[in-house]
Formats: sequence, C-alpha cells, structure tokens
Amino acid sequence: MVSLESDYNNGVHPKVLEHLGVTNSQRTASYGDDHFSQHARQLIREACQAPEAEIYFLAGGTQTNATIIDCLLQPYEGVICCDTAHINVHEAGAVEFTGHKVLALPGHDGRLVADDVAAYLDAYYADETAEHMVRPGMVYITFPTELGTLYSLQELQDLSHLCEHYGLPLYVDGARLAYGLAASPDVDLPTLAHLASVFYIGGTKCGALCGEAVVFPAGHAPAHMLSRIKQHGALLAKSRVVGAQFEALFSDPSPLYLQLGREAVELAMRLRHLFTHRLHYRPFIDSPTNQQFFIVPNADLPFLRRHIGFETWCPVDAGHTACRFVTSWATTPAELQTLEELFR
Amino acid sequence: MVSLESDYNNGVHPKVLEHLGVTNSQRTASYGDDHFSQHARQLIREACQAPEAEIYFLAGGTQTNATIIDCLLQPYEGVICCDTAHINVHEAGAVEFTGHKVLALPGHDGRLVADDVAAYLDAYYADETAEHMVRPGMVYITFPTELGTLYSLQELQDLSHLCEHYGLPLYVDGARLAYGLAASPDVDLPTLAHLASVFYIGGTKCGALCGEAVVFPAGHAPAHMLSRIKQHGALLAKSRVVGAQFEALFSDPSPLYLQLGREAVELAMRLRHLFTHRLHYRPFIDSPTNQQFFIVPNADLPFLRRHIGFETWCPVDAGHTACRFVTSWATTPAELQTLEELFR
Amino acid sequence: MVSLESDYNNGVHPKVLEHLGVTNSQRTASYGDDHFSQHARQLIREACQAPEAEIYFLAGGTQTNATIIDCLLQPYEGVICCDTAHINVHEAGAVEFTGHKVLALPGHDGRLVADDVAAYLDAYYADETAEHMVRPGMVYITFPTELGTLYSLQELQDLSHLCEHYGLPLYVDGARLAYGLAASPDVDLPTLAHLASVFYIGGTKCGALCGEAVVFPAGHAPAHMLSRIKQHGALLAKSRVVGAQFEALFSDPSPLYLQLGREAVELAMRLRHLFTHRLHYRPFIDSPTNQQFFIVPNADLPFLRRHIGFETWCPVDAGHTACRFVTSWATTPAELQTLEELFR
Amino acid sequence: MVSLESDYNNGVHPKVLEHLGVTNSQRTASYGDDHFSQHARQLIREACQAPEAEIYFLAGGTQTNATIIDCLLQPYEGVICCDTAHINVHEAGAVEFTGHKVLALPGHDGRLVADDVAAYLDAYYADETAEHMVRPGMVYITFPTELGTLYSLQELQDLSHLCEHYGLPLYVDGARLAYGLAASPDVDLPTLAHLASVFYIGGTKCGALCGEAVVFPAGHAPAHMLSRIKQHGALLAKSRVVGAQFEALFSDPSPLYLQLGREAVELAMRLRHLFTHRLHYRPFIDSPTNQQFFIVPNADLPFLRRHIGFETWCPVDAGHTACRFVTSWATTPAELQTLEELFR
Repeated sequence: MVSLESDYNNGVHPKVLEHLGVTNSQRTASYGDDHFSQHARQLIREACQAPEAEIYFLAGGTQTNATIIDCLLQPYEGVICCDTAHINVHEAGAVEFTGHKVLALPGHDGRLVADDVAAYLDAYYADETAEHMVRPGMVYITFPTELGTLYSLQELQDLSHLCEHYGLPLYVDGARLAYGLAASPDVDLPTLAHLASVFYIGGTKCGALCGEAVVFPAGHAPAHMLSRIKQHGALLAKSRVVGAQFEALFSDPSPLYLQLGREAVELAMRLRHLFTHRLHYRPFIDSPTNQQFFIVPNADLPFLRRHIGFETWCPVDAGHTACRFVTSWATTPAELQTLEELFR
Repeated sequence: MVSLESDYNNGVHPKVLEHLGVTNSQRTASYGDDHFSQHARQLIREACQAPEAEIYFLAGGTQTNATIIDCLLQPYEGVICCDTAHINVHEAGAVEFTGHKVLALPGHDGRLVADDVAAYLDAYYADETAEHMVRPGMVYITFPTELGTLYSLQELQDLSHLCEHYGLPLYVDGARLAYGLAASPDVDLPTLAHLASVFYIGGTKCGALCGEAVVFPAGHAPAHMLSRIKQHGALLAKSRVVGAQFEALFSDPSPLYLQLGREAVELAMRLRHLFTHRLHYRPFIDSPTNQQFFIVPNADLPFLRRHIGFETWCPVDAGHTACRFVTSWATTPAELQTLEELFR
Repeated sequence: MVSLESDYNNGVHPKVLEHLGVTNSQRTASYGDDHFSQHARQLIREACQAPEAEIYFLAGGTQTNATIIDCLLQPYEGVICCDTAHINVHEAGAVEFTGHKVLALPGHDGRLVADDVAAYLDAYYADETAEHMVRPGMVYITFPTELGTLYSLQELQDLSHLCEHYGLPLYVDGARLAYGLAASPDVDLPTLAHLASVFYIGGTKCGALCGEAVVFPAGHAPAHMLSRIKQHGALLAKSRVVGAQFEALFSDPSPLYLQLGREAVELAMRLRHLFTHRLHYRPFIDSPTNQQFFIVPNADLPFLRRHIGFETWCPVDAGHTACRFVTSWATTPAELQTLEELFR
Repeated sequence: MVSLESDYNNGVHPKVLEHLGVTNSQRTASYGDDHFSQHARQLIREACQAPEAEIYFLAGGTQTNATIIDCLLQPYEGVICCDTAHINVHEAGAVEFTGHKVLALPGHDGRLVADDVAAYLDAYYADETAEHMVRPGMVYITFPTELGTLYSLQELQDLSHLCEHYGLPLYVDGARLAYGLAASPDVDLPTLAHLASVFYIGGTKCGALCGEAVVFPAGHAPAHMLSRIKQHGALLAKSRVVGAQFEALFSDPSPLYLQLGREAVELAMRLRHLFTHRLHYRPFIDSPTNQQFFIVPNADLPFLRRHIGFETWCPVDAGHTACRFVTSWATTPAELQTLEELFR
C-alpha cells in the first residue's frame, strides 16, 4: 500500500529526529529565547538573505494564519484572498473568530490575480459608502496554492508592487513552501523574502513533527508580538521543540528543508508521468508541485484503492472522479517503483 | 551549575523520545484520528478509571485553558478563579480575548476556597441587577496551584459539590499534575476524574516535548469540539506528535507520567530539607510539590547564583528575597548531591 | 428640491412625536420593563397574531442584526445570506466582529433562493472535511431586499420549510418592512410571523426617530437575551424611547406603521409611472417597493440634480447611470405633484 | 409618591422635546453628517473651550464605554479602573466582549487614586514576565463616580499627569456629568476637557431621551472612528435624533445641560438636609451629587416605601439598610416640598 493521502500523515525526518535526540539533555531558556530558536533564526536569515528578518516559531498552520493576520490587521480591517484560500474554507472560521472579515475574490486555479485585487481596491476606495464596508487591510496568498499551483515570479512581483502601491502588507502562507520552491523555476527563498511583507516556512508538512517559522524579512514585526502570540494561545513554553527542528532543517549550507522539497517534487513528477503516460489520466489541475490531481475513471477506483492511499477530490462527470495524490519528504523512490511496476 | 529555574527548560524524557523514534516511520491518520492518539486515549481512560472519558490533545497550557474555557462557557458567561490564577495573571488576556470575563476571587496560598465561591454565587443570584453583570459559568482551579500548594481531597470535594449544586462545571488546570498527584496524600487520577467536570494532564512540564491531554471524565464534551479547537488554532494536523508522547507516558501499568512526578517531588523534598535544615531558610510558601519557595538572605544570593539557576520571586524585607527553586523529571539525584555537598 | 435620497433623512412621524409629548411626564421602569414597551409588545403580538411572541426593542439596524445573529448562532457557526445582503456589505463587518463568518451565496436581484441554500447545505453536510469548515447556523434574508425587491409567499415558504428541514432558524431583516408589506400581494405580518423564526420590524426607516422591534413569533428567544443585548451595548436604559414610538406606530386597529408603508409605496408607484411613461427611463431593477432604481441618461443628470435629491447607484454604460430614488413616510403627494408638473 | 429611583425613569426635558418638534420636518444628512449634529458639535466645542475637539454622538452609556475603550486600546491591552467601576461590574462584560481585560484596582469611595495606578504600572513595567500579562493601555474613571462622589481638581490633575507620564489616555465616563459639574467646586467643562484625553457628556441621565456626546478635546480621535462605531453597532442612521437633542442642551450661552445639573443637585441637597437634620439618618456615602445614600432604620422602610420610590443598596447591620435616593432634572421643587411636609 503506497500512502499518498497527504503530506502530514508521517512522522519527522530522521535527521531532525536525530537532532532532537542529540540536543535533548541540554537545558535552555524558554518562550522563544532558547538558543536553538536563536540559532535557527540566524540560519533562516541567511537562507533568506534577509539579515534584518524577525522570526517567530509557532506550532501549526491555522494557528499561524489566524495569529499573523490578526496582528497585521487593524481591528476594523479584513484580509483579501481568493475564494479557495485555506483561510476562507478550511480553518473553521479562525480568522473571523478574531473579528476580521475574509474578503474572498474569485481564484484562478487557486491563485489570486493582481488585476482582480486592483479592481476590488479601486472600487472600494471609490465607494462613497466605504466607511460602512470592511476596509481591506492586507493580501493573503499561498505558495504553492491549495490546488498545488504556483505563482510565477512575474505574478508575485505584480502582487507585491500592487500591495506596496496601496500600502497593504502581502502575506504568503508557506505551509508547503519546500515543495513550491522546489518546483518553481524562478522563485527562491531570497526572492520570496524580497517580495513578501511576511511569510511562513511550513514545517509540519515539510519534514518537522510540528512547527512553522514566520518570517518578517525586513523586520518591523507588529509591536508586542510575543504577548499577542500568547494571547492567541500560540506561544510554546518549551519553544526549543520547534526551534531545534528548524535548526536541523536549515543547518546545512544546502538546507535539508529545500532538499526534502526537491525529492518530493521529483517523485511527484514520476507519479505524474506514470499517470499521464502509462494510465493516460488527464490532470484535473496542472500542478507542478507535490500535490497531483488526476481525472480517474470510476472503474479504476477499486483497483487504485487496493494499492494506493489517496483522496477523492470531487466528481467530474458520471464516469470520472478527480483524485488527489500527494508525495512528501516521507515518500520513497521504492514506493514509486512499486507503482511503476504495478502499472507496467 | 544546578538548573532549578523551571520545569520547562528541558527536553523530553528519554523513554518518550525513544518511542517517537520507534514509531516514526509509521503512516497515520491526522487531526486526532491517528492510532497513537486513539491508544493514548484508551490508556488515559484506564489510568483515570473513566471508561466514558472523552479526551483531546492540545499543544500548550495557555492554549488549552483559553480553548476549553471558551467552549465550556456560554458567550455571556465568565469564569471564577482565584486572583493568582494563571488565567488571571499570566496568559496575556487569552481568556478575555475570546470574550469572557475572568471573575477573580481572593486566593488562599493560591487556592480557591469553596466558601468564597458560594458567597460570590449567592450574592450574584440575589442581586436584582444580575442580568447587567457577567454570569458566572464555571469554576477554574489548578492542581497544584501556581504557588505549588495542593487542594486536599476534602477541599476538592467541597468545590466539586458546590459546582454540582450550582450547575457549574469544575475545570482543573493540571499543567503540573504529575507533581501534584505525587505529593498528594489523598488525591489520585481516578479521584480527580471523579470530582472534576474536565481537567487536563499537563505534558509540557511533566516529561513531554509539548502537549496537554484534556479529559472530560464522564464524556459529554461540548458539541463540535474538533471544529472549535481548530477555530482556536489549536488543532494539530500531525496529532501523533502529542498522541505518541502520551502513549509513552501512560503505557506502563505504573505509568511513567506518575513515576516522573514522584521522582521530582522526592528531589524537591531533599532540596527542602537541605534549605531548611542545613541553610536554615524559612519557606516562603509551604509547598509539598516540585516548586519550592524560600526566604533567602540577600547576602547569600551571589553565592547561590554561582551554583544554582533559580528565579527570584519577590522581595520579602530589606534583607531577604523570596526565591523559587523548581525540580522536574529532568532533575537528577546527582544534582541534589552536588548541592548537598556544596552546603555541607 | 424634492428629497428622495433615502428613507432616513427625515424626522419622526408627527403622530409618533405627539405621543412622545403626551407621555413625556410619566415616570417609568427602565431597561425594557417600562409600560410603554410592555404595551407596544402586546400591540405587536396582536398585529402579528402571535400571542406567544417575545419582543425586544433595539436602537438601530446594524446593531440589531449583529446582536440577534450572534445570539442565534453557536460560536462556531456562520450565517447564510446572499452576496448583496446588508450584513455582508454595509455593516462594517459587525457580524465578523462578533466572531462569525458570513456565508454569502449568489443573489438573484437581491434575493436568496431556497435551491441555492439547499445545494450549499447538502454539499456542506456531505463534505468529509466539514468539521474544518464553518458550520452554517442560520439563514438571513431581508424583506424587502437591499434592491427593493420582495420574496413571494411561495419563496418565503420554500426558505422557511428548508430551514425547518435543516434545523436552522430563518431570520428576516425588516429594516424597511412597512414598505415591503405594503407592496406584497401575499405576505402580511401574521404570515411573516408564521414563517420566520425571528424578524425585526424596522422603525428608523419607517416613521420612528430610532428603534427596531425584534420579534420571536413563537417565543423561545435565546437565554439571557437582556444580558446579551447589554453585552452588545444595545440595551437602552431609557427603553421608553423606542417602546413609546412603537406604541404609537401600532396603537390603531389599522396600525399607523402599515399605513405609512402603503402611502410611501403609492408615491413610489406614481414616481415609477412618471419615470417610465413620461421620461421613458427603464428600471434598473424591477422594484415594487419604496426604493426605485432607474437607468438615467447621463445628459439628464444635471437637470435632475437641480430638482431632486437622489443617489447614483452605479454606471450602466458609457451614456447611462443607474440611480436610486427613495420615497418614505415623509414624502408628500405635493412633492410628487411637483415632479409631475416638472416633467410634464 | 415621589419618584427617586433613578435618573433615567423619566422622559425628555420639555425644551429638548420642543426642539425635536420644531426641527422635525427638516430633511438632513445622516450617519453623523446632519446639520443638527454639526451644530451641536460646535456648541460643545465652545462650552468646552476646545476648538479642536472631535465629537461623536452615540446612543447609550454601556455602548459608548465599550466602543471608545475598544477603539483606544490596542488589541493586547487592558483598561485600568477601580473595582466598583461601571465597566467592571454593571455592563454585562461588554468590554471583555471586545477582547480586553478590565484591570480593576481597589477603589476609594468609588474613586481611583493616582498613587494606586502608579504603583500598579511601576510593578507591571518592572515585572520580567510583563509580556505574559495584559498590558495596561488606558485609565478609566467616572465623574461623578458610581457612588455619587467626585474627584477634586487636584485628584484629576494627578491622574491626568500620571497618564501623560506613562503615555496612557485618560477616559472620563460622564454618564451623570451634569450633576458632577454642578456639584464640583473646581472642575468645569473646560477643565475636564483640558485634563481628559477623551470623555463623554451623558445625555440619557441628564435631560435627553437618549444619547451621549463623546469628546476628544484635542482632536486625534482614533482612525476610522465612523467605521469602528458602526462595527460596534453604535452608528445611528438617523443621527439627528441625538444631534438635535444636544443642540437643544447646549444652545444657550448658559447651557441648559449645566442648568439641569444645578437644579437636580440643589434638590439633592434639600433632600440631604431633610434626611440628616429632620430624620437624623447618617449618610452611607458622603455624596455631593444627585445620588444620595443614607443608612435607614429598617423600621422606617415601610413608611418610606409608601411615599417614595427608591432603591435599597445593601444591608448595613441587623437594623439598618443603605438606601439610594436619586434626584434628576425631572425632579420638581414641589416633590421636595411634599417630602418636607411629610417629615415635618
């Protein structure tokens, strides 16, 4: 049984676990002041070529989104995103729970397009009743998106310039950032750090047990972030648990984090080749990252289910279903080989 | 240098770490459905002699308090606690952040006393303007308290009966539960499970990397808890990280969790004996648990600081300072021996 | 200058003002217990043929919506409405401010359609990840809608049955209810009271200085409503100010409230006839109520502006603009006559 | 029966009602832009000798407190007040509902004392764990207090200087401001405007049907106040209802508002003389304003109740009860004469 259900159904990368073991007997400070977190911050600053970056470690993705969005927004502001955004659909209303409206615009294969945002903002500012509406306070995107797609460098630059023009921060949710960076031809960590006001490097889905690293590349994080993170219930007393993991993920000159992304995407491409060329499935969405979506004939489903763990996404027509197959750092070449032999 | 600053300046108990390693390659379900969490729940039910218990795993203490209190209260209700309670002082207003007032009553060495609660409730219900006031919706205590003290069985029963009488849930914050149970002559896990409506078994300070186990001993957790935990940003995608740790902490017939508490309290008693009999320090608070508070002559502080890590608590008089010395599962007999030799 | 900008640019109906004067020297209870409010409740129960109705008086529309929606929803639930709904667009995020997501579905000329709601709910309940999404907790509509349109009796019944089927309350925002009831061929107050779980009778736009009457036709208002209304800052100490106005609006066997609606709609129809038959403007939306929307040639705008106060709604094409003309209880037949003579 | 239960059991001062009548047929702008509100703002600026003042009209006291406090605080800040403060006891948790902790210090006959605040702030800033606590963000007092007492000019100056020193706004709740100013030997409107960062002039209890005027004497109100007021459900569409009332209350060179306060306090002093000299009751609190508190022999209660409407405040001892007797602008000299004759 090859497990392609998700990228969080696994444990922790062995090198990260090993690092937890090696450092386990050390006593440290807490609440983010531990030396593991300090060092991990320095490593991430270097990987981002962002020496002024302020970095906070949180435990999970929804928590990170809700906390960072609430801290970036004024209480009367909302966050612009596309309709399929995780914060709009799959976070149980965590953003609204902190009092903010999610201002959802139509997405394009999971992407938010700069022109749509510009049109929305222009209409808002031109509206005589704007003070009766929710003020747009920031822009949220994911890289890669919920649908596995990527923003090109040009698209990111367009959004970044637009945000700068309107004075809005651009926040990039990087829950699967390793896989996005691995698949992108023109966006790397320093580029992202240059274009985003704040982003997070997702650990949970990319090699860690838990943990996300929030990066304010140019510094200037909101005041009293520690207090606000605690107010959101997101401050870990034993902060080393995340700090040490990111230390392991970023300690090599060629960071393990990026390496894990590359390996998973390579396997995703083998999977894609197998499904399109051997099984002749059409992609449901054209994703270059670790999430692959195919249109599967319903007749094939029982056989697939016997050999692969995966999620059905949505029905396509009477005879076909869109299905999602996800590789991760934990997927092995041997697993792909098993599938290749199975479908020979 | 003997480290007695806190019980969260350490890593994870080696047996727990070993279990994370042994189970690391397994693929699991997520969001609490993983088999580690399932098994850990069963083990905890058995340790609590509470076969109907519903159990949720969260990442940290403030998060757990804010989430559980918000879920137990109606939106117009507040939580009764004593003035030194963690939720009233040291959680950055996380409870108020979810819209609820903390109704603080005077504490007695960190304890909330049933008679005070009864007087408060009677006054509230007798007040003709009660509908203009915040309705008391639950009672919060900690075991052990912020000051290391304990509730006797009788005191717990009094609070439990009072709560039952008024129809209010009794919630017990067990951030340091292992140490409290180890020190108590008459309260054990089944007793606590019998008297509390809900409580949590603290992992972060008692052997785990992170994680708290929330126990509703009789079941009847609020509806849609998973959704509400997520709304609070407290739902871990890779829930195994906490589940597997509690599996390790509770897998033995004599659970490691309780054993760790006993060892730390034993060392705390050796420390207490050393300080009171050898150094002739008076206790600042009479604590039977792993947090020890002594009145230290200021002249002794420099010497102590050279050999021990500890926190100053508050000034007592011109020549004395109250100091806190904390043992934990990570404190070793060798460390105590070092101190005993130092103060011979 | 004929003033057709809005239905809240006026004072209070003379008969209501007179009643405030006549009763002014009486001393009363407060916070809703005053005898004016008590009597007004009884009059409204009779007008609604809803003897069990529980009725609360609040000051304004956004306040009423935010308070009632928050009280009807569980903290983890959201409110379904159509995309043009006042709560979704023009309340500055007051619903989200209380923690709830607004779940907006596409509207049909301002109306929410039962089939759309059913499809949304079916998809939600069928979704395996539903616990990660915002749970739909109620349905919100306006009568008449933001665009002046009405629900037919059949449409209301469909929504009501749908809500009953799914166990969701149906809430009807009646900010302009007088005008809607006056224009409807088949919906009257008792019918509305029969089909809605809760609705409000708008006073501010329909003859009062301020005030809205929230009606729970079958009783069963949420617990501790007084306390919750106060928690929202919406409890008037001197509740008589709204109570006495509604007493005046509903004291006649043929209530003044309904009479005011009929007169305003009659004038709106004269306006409509004038614009469509004399000026040959096409309606922008086919509204039977006091808000009339016409497609005006831009060349006509300067002349219109010299003689009429009105709002431009949105551009239609290069040469035309949609404009809104609103009659109210304060609009006089003489004003209509002025316009008729002007455009002869 | 002489009615001394409260200062909000009455209607509206006849001159204010007359003004509502005279202006009723005028059409106006809305949402605070109406010419009544504009003019009232100008009159209040003059009465306060604060030409830069920004002024907002809201409907009621709890609403005003919750809205202004939320707008002045950062989301992670709390409000300092004394334990008997209205926001701490009698607003159903409206401040906490917006996410902020109420930081209550012991009161002195209802007053907050500058030294207590300084001690609290010094302790907070010296605390190494301050980031884990709620940050004090403003100071709230009432003038007069809940117990009818007043701050002297010196006490107000002390608080004002303290707030300036710590960079905290000082907010004065003036629900009964007219009565406080009438009774104070050294505090008038310009003085208050000079010492407070923001205060409100209470209308509901001092001659109006409803309405409070929030004054930022030096301008610099928080950004987007209109939007935030709406977000709190506190923006009146037909803002003239409050604007016109304050126009009437402040249109005379010697404002009616202040005159009403003087008359009520004069009657309160007659009442006080009657109770202390004729009935030999001792004051429960020494109040110079319109709220008078006396220690009444329980044997007298039935007789008093036959002739006077009043509230029992609290038991004093087995034979005595503290009772509150409140005069207002609506109390008449004839009513006092009735009492004087009754107790001759």
